[in-house]
Amino acid sequence: MTKQHVNETRIQEMIEGIAQFTSTPGKGTTRLTYSEEHRGVRDYLLTKMKEAGLQTREDAVGNLFGRIEGQNPDLPPVLVGSHFDSVPNGGAFDGPAGVVTGLETAFVFQELGLKPERPVEIIAMIEEEGGRFGSGLLGSRLLTGQVSQQDLQELKDANGVSVAEAMSTFGLDPSHADKVALAADSIHAFLELHIEQGPVLEQHEEDVGIVTEVVSLSQVEVTVKGAAGHAGTTPMNARKDAMVGAASIIAKLPEMVKAVDDAAVGTVGRITVQPGGANVIADSVSFSVDIRSPSANSVAQIKERLNTALEQLQPSGLTYNVSEKITIPSTPMSADIQKQFAHDADSFGLKWRHMPSGAGHDAMILSKITQVGLVFVPSRDGISHAPEEWTDYDKLAKGIEVIFRTAKALSES
Amino acid sequence: MTKQHVNETRIQEMIEGIAQFTSTPGKGTTRLTYSEEHRGVRDYLLTKMKEAGLQTREDAVGNLFGRIEGQNPDLPPVLVGSHFDSVPNGGAFDGPAGVVTGLETAFVFQELGLKPERPVEIIAMIEEEGGRFGSGLLGSRLLTGQVSQQDLQELKDANGVSVAEAMSTFGLDPSHADKVALAADSIHAFLELHIEQGPVLEQHEEDVGIVTEVVSLSQVEVTVKGAAGHAGTTPMNARKDAMVGAASIIAKLPEMVKAVDDAAVGTVGRITVQPGGANVIADSVSFSVDIRSPSANSVAQIKERLNTALEQLQPSGLTYNVSEKITIPSTPMSADIQKQFAHDADSFGLKWRHMPSGAGHDAMILSKITQVGLVFVPSRDGISHAPEEWTDYDKLAKGIEVIFRTAKALSES
Repeated sequence: MTKQHVNETRIQEMIEGIAQFTSTPGKGTTRLTYSEEHRGVRDYLLTKMKEAGLQTREDAVGNLFGRIEGQNPDLPPVLVGSHFDSVPNGGAFDGPAGVVTGLETAFVFQELGLKPERPVEIIAMIEEEGGRFGSGLLGSRLLTGQVSQQDLQELKDANGVSVAEAMSTFGLDPSHADKVALAADSIHAFLELHIEQGPVLEQHEEDVGIVTEVVSLSQVEVTVKGAAGHAGTTPMNARKDAMVGAASIIAKLPEMVKAVDDAAVGTVGRITVQPGGANVIADSVSFSVDIRSPSANSVAQIKERLNTALEQLQPSGLTYNVSEKITIPSTPMSADIQKQFAHDADSFGLKWRHMPSGAGHDAMILSKITQVGLVFVPSRDGISHAPEEWTDYDKLAKGIEVIFRTAKALSES
Repeated sequence: MTKQHVNETRIQEMIEGIAQFTSTPGKGTTRLTYSEEHRGVRDYLLTKMKEAGLQTREDAVGNLFGRIEGQNPDLPPVLVGSHFDSVPNGGAFDGPAGVVTGLETAFVFQELGLKPERPVEIIAMIEEEGGRFGSGLLGSRLLTGQVSQQDLQELKDANGVSVAEAMSTFGLDPSHADKVALAADSIHAFLELHIEQGPVLEQHEEDVGIVTEVVSLSQVEVTVKGAAGHAGTTPMNARKDAMVGAASIIAKLPEMVKAVDDAAVGTVGRITVQPGGANVIADSVSFSVDIRSPSANSVAQIKERLNTALEQLQPSGLTYNVSEKITIPSTPMSADIQKQFAHDADSFGLKWRHMPSGAGHDAMILSKITQVGLVFVPSRDGISHAPEEWTDYDKLAKGIEVIFRTAKALSES
């Protein structure tokens, strides 16, 4: 087991330094894009980048870059980083753990006096969570040319302020937003560290997860329709109770999922009932179904089972509708980078596993323009998007060490 | 079959006359207490009462009375009527059918030149639905001394206006509200006609229902608690999904009810999920359970089965809480009045049945101070509390004929 290069104390200082910029002190991290907390952490990150000897740059939408020049400055750089926004009342690690990974990588390059062949760029991206404008992965989608000027006008926050308006207020020029897109050959690789946001690494007492792919995802909205009626005056055998029908489907979802694929997951997280009175039989119940698996075929099979179960409601007088909301195929991570991660984790004596990512991350989006690698570190109790979100600093440091070693290797040729 | 005394055309005119006072024309009847629509229908009803030769009176809270004097004016009167408020976007019959029953009874007394031994009073009550202040049966509860001055200050509408404030604005003096309570020996009987709000009479092609009792009712709020988690990153076997647990209970409720009592009903009309995101496993799901039966023992047994089912969630890591919201024992209607109704329905050649009322009505409250009788007329498709609420006028007239005959009989001695 070789020596650890990254500095756990400095990592902790930077996580805590970023966490102080929250609009909900004492109630977790709330750092919405183009807010004063955004400005605070932006200034903090640019200061840290300069401390690490980086040339800094803020692009037209607010993504931050810090560059270690390469011996050959014309070679496409290795990019390392993640996002710096948060969900409302989130934690200190989702996003910042990956941003600090970039900063710490730069500090170690500086301390070791490394002169890489190709440039290494640290990146801190905006609006991954969609916490302000309701549209996730916005920073990385802007970087890959997937957001139009019209989108910037149409995407609005809870107060009706558009992305473009918020950018102007923040001091950025939205008319330049298209120019931030990076050409496919302009980046050599993107490396991201993220907290797992699940219990697998902790349960198996493993140090890091090397992500094989971001899973295939389908979100549908199911509506079951029956007939309203008075809860007291409508006999049980004269009812078309949409709530009972919907509940029978939701109760069976775990079986449907497990019958198809042990690695798949299915979740109903949202439900609404019409009319919604305690003394009125529901005539309409709508609920979200989120289905994910490394196998797109499994996702499709689970949706088929869901449809079959819904058809079986029809004899009881209920009708249904399934509306597709999101369908994302699985996104493979670079096999070469996975090998390098594995090599570096082994050389550092870490326990690791290959695993899919059940959640989308910036690496998924940036895979459209470059090879990408994603490393997970353990989440205590699997919790994220909550003030209790936590990764021990020694565990975070181990993941950052892997990213540093891989960034070093990739930048040497 | 004896001749019909009540006048179907006049009944229709009065139902339509009342229905014009709605704040949502074209979208059903919306007539909230102490609104301008209340004032409009109040003036209309007082005018109609005078046309029918009645001495009119508005009590301190807005309940309207019209009196046919008795040969013996000191005898307690027979009271006939119902309420004249509506739910938001309700129908033209729920309440007004019973108020028109009172008016039509008075018109027939006038036309036939009847001089009853005891007085007959027509009553039109306020705020039965709780549509404005969220507290049902307020008019009849005021009449039975069950509402305090403090209640009138504390009960507020959606804009924060208290009952007392709304009364003052309307031109009534809330400080006199306690004085409207009627002494137990001051009323001889209360007769109410109401739409069934269910499908039973229509399905059996029967003319009227003679209500035996208002059923026993229990409303509880169930909360199932699990653990939140990311929908993508938490394996199925590591979940404590409160939504799945809650759904399994709701899906089983109809079986639980039917296993105990064929005449019982159970309904989940309201459900809320925390945190409520499509990509977040629910950590808490709360839902209402409304259980009713003619037998209070059946209601208790169904609640026991519900508790047993909830206990069975515990091995999957879920916890639960059941909070009692409303418990009302069954309220018997007067056996003597049921007999008189049956006699009058038979003499008029009607098809009728004894049946429980699954819904609470003013008669239930007034049973605290006098003998009460309640007659149902058919609801088309069982629908109520909706613009589509409907009872054919010939069917309504048949029910009113029964009430007229019984009112006549009861007022003769």
